[in-house]
Amino acid sequence: MAEVRVPQAVRWASAGAALEIIDQTRLPENTTYLRLGSAVETAAAIREMRVRGAPAIGIAAAMGLAVEMGRLARSGVPLGAEAFQEAHALLRSTRPTGHNLSWALERMRCAYARCAGAAAAEVVAALRAEADAIAAEDRLACRRIGELGFELLPPEGATVYTHCNAGALATGGIGTAVAPIYVARERGVPVRVIVGETRPLLQGSRLTAWELSQAGVDVTVVADSVAASLMKEGRVNLVITGADRIAANGDVANKIGTYGLAVLAGHHGIPFYVAAPVSTIDPATRNGGRIPVEQRDAAEVRQGCGAVTAPREVAIANPAFDVTPAGFITAIVTERGVLRPPYSAGIAEVAGQGEGSRPLESG
Amino acid sequence: MAEVRVPQAVRWASAGAALEIIDQTRLPENTTYLRLGSAVETAAAIREMRVRGAPAIGIAAAMGLAVEMGRLARSGVPLGAEAFQEAHALLRSTRPTGHNLSWALERMRCAYARCAGAAAAEVVAALRAEADAIAAEDRLACRRIGELGFELLPPEGATVYTHCNAGALATGGIGTAVAPIYVARERGVPVRVIVGETRPLLQGSRLTAWELSQAGVDVTVVADSVAASLMKEGRVNLVITGADRIAANGDVANKIGTYGLAVLAGHHGIPFYVAAPVSTIDPATRNGGRIPVEQRDAAEVRQGCGAVTAPREVAIANPAFDVTPAGFITAIVTERGVLRPPYSAGIAEVAGQGEGSRPLESG
Repeated sequence: MAEVRVPQAVRWASAGAALEIIDQTRLPENTTYLRLGSAVETAAAIREMRVRGAPAIGIAAAMGLAVEMGRLARSGVPLGAEAFQEAHALLRSTRPTGHNLSWALERMRCAYARCAGAAAAEVVAALRAEADAIAAEDRLACRRIGELGFELLPPEGATVYTHCNAGALATGGIGTAVAPIYVARERGVPVRVIVGETRPLLQGSRLTAWELSQAGVDVTVVADSVAASLMKEGRVNLVITGADRIAANGDVANKIGTYGLAVLAGHHGIPFYVAAPVSTIDPATRNGGRIPVEQRDAAEVRQGCGAVTAPREVAIANPAFDVTPAGFITAIVTERGVLRPPYSAGIAEVAGQGEGSRPLESG
Repeated sequence: MAEVRVPQAVRWASAGAALEIIDQTRLPENTTYLRLGSAVETAAAIREMRVRGAPAIGIAAAMGLAVEMGRLARSGVPLGAEAFQEAHALLRSTRPTGHNLSWALERMRCAYARCAGAAAAEVVAALRAEADAIAAEDRLACRRIGELGFELLPPEGATVYTHCNAGALATGGIGTAVAPIYVARERGVPVRVIVGETRPLLQGSRLTAWELSQAGVDVTVVADSVAASLMKEGRVNLVITGADRIAANGDVANKIGTYGLAVLAGHHGIPFYVAAPVSTIDPATRNGGRIPVEQRDAAEVRQGCGAVTAPREVAIANPAFDVTPAGFITAIVTERGVLRPPYSAGIAEVAGQGEGSRPLESG
């Protein structure tokens, strides 16, 4: 079967003078594209989660930085270190938890450093090429994660539970957690997907269900708190989620709710897999306790869908992520191999493979 | 401190010719009262969850049955067994999982049988009196559950996690799971409450947060999937939920998500309590596997808050309840005592205590 068709979350527009994203806050009702012509516009789109998913954020930030340098060059502003650093810092400040953002921006910094002193047009071209490479490599990584993850599925088919969106919309390709499902679809292996809606922003029901159903995958949406009883009833064969940051010891920060799913999967004897590109691994973060967890605005819970869903006078806690200790994770699927516990050595190895050519760490 | 003031979910109106409920689908934004003048109107209100919570449903159904008989009497319709049975069956059919509904209607049937052959006015008066007694006894049961449950709280105060709404809005009094919190408030013991919003219908964020904040209780709302990480971080001292039906062996059907919380609490070494009146106990149901779990409309998930929250073409599974095996429950708090595992003997004892005077079982 031909390769599955998936939406492209981020792409160039206006011959590289802008990037264009699907506004993910408006799905599934409206498929709207937003043109981002500056670092300020890109940063706002990332902060407002119009583009989200750790790999897609990294790609968008890299493209946004190239776009900004192009914009400054067209205005005659010299592309000095200060201008670069300002745009870099703005984009870097948008979301604190995911690692791909700082990783991609660090690659852009190296690309910029490599062409220091060149003419503006050359600098802009080099930055565009680096952003292109980041996107292209992510696309390949997703495909490879899909192939490797597919091997973990029972050959006769399975019911996979996933959370949030680690699909095409979160990446430059066919996703991470969702990639093995797309590969199964291409190869005619029946995979049924159950996705938790993923409150408060409903990336599971709005995004994952949308892109899977567009690709003809059998998908069912449940409220997040249904997962436990489905596991008890034997209706889930395995759980796969993505990751926003993987620490050196294998602890995984991912969308809030992931840790609970991991504990529940463990309790019910169900494998719990994490799928992510190596760019999500942060070898400089020793363990999950050192990963900053973004707290998002109370309004996401209080008026999540437009309606008043909690009283104005009541406190809200809205952490966007949680940390799953490595001990709950059956395997971590990367494009460079499937890692098994204990993770430290395998993580150091896959993260180190690219170090000669590409910086895989950031401070 | 004086008794805490709580909203009254169900009450008589028009001198017993109707009942009046707070329309719980419109909270917290609008406090609207609905007047229900027939069994049909009462059944619709229960089905649409304008009145909900197992004890409150029982009270509303009993009152609705008395109201219906009064309505028929005023129209000159003879209050024969057939008319009674029709209204009884209509009300009985509204929700399948909670036990208090069939329990209360069974009490109404006995009251009706006791005045068989009497004048219509006497039949109506007897049915009103029985519905009154059901409501008054539930009010007392809630108070007693509050006092007994309070004894389970650390004397220096605690952070309690609860789910859905097992508060005043769910009962004829100060609630079940929430009653110990109100008693703590009255006695000046600091209790902080964290409540999961309880998708899809958000009874936690819309109802529990509302009634607790009205009573001056410190309450924080979180998305349901935040619970696990709060437990991991040591920020929850105990979990208390209500129940919709308790089987003879102590298995508990309650709002979807309860089972997951029980597993997570057990994993983190946190006590998991269930609080419910004896009218929630169904000794005729041997274990939780025999409790029918209501599947509700997909629209609750697909358009939960008015917005499109999942694609139209995608399947939805929307079970309203799950079953928590008795082994996960630290104690069950009833108005007749705090039961500890193994539950069978204690449940038989408290359920049997009322059998001489009142039927505590239904078929």
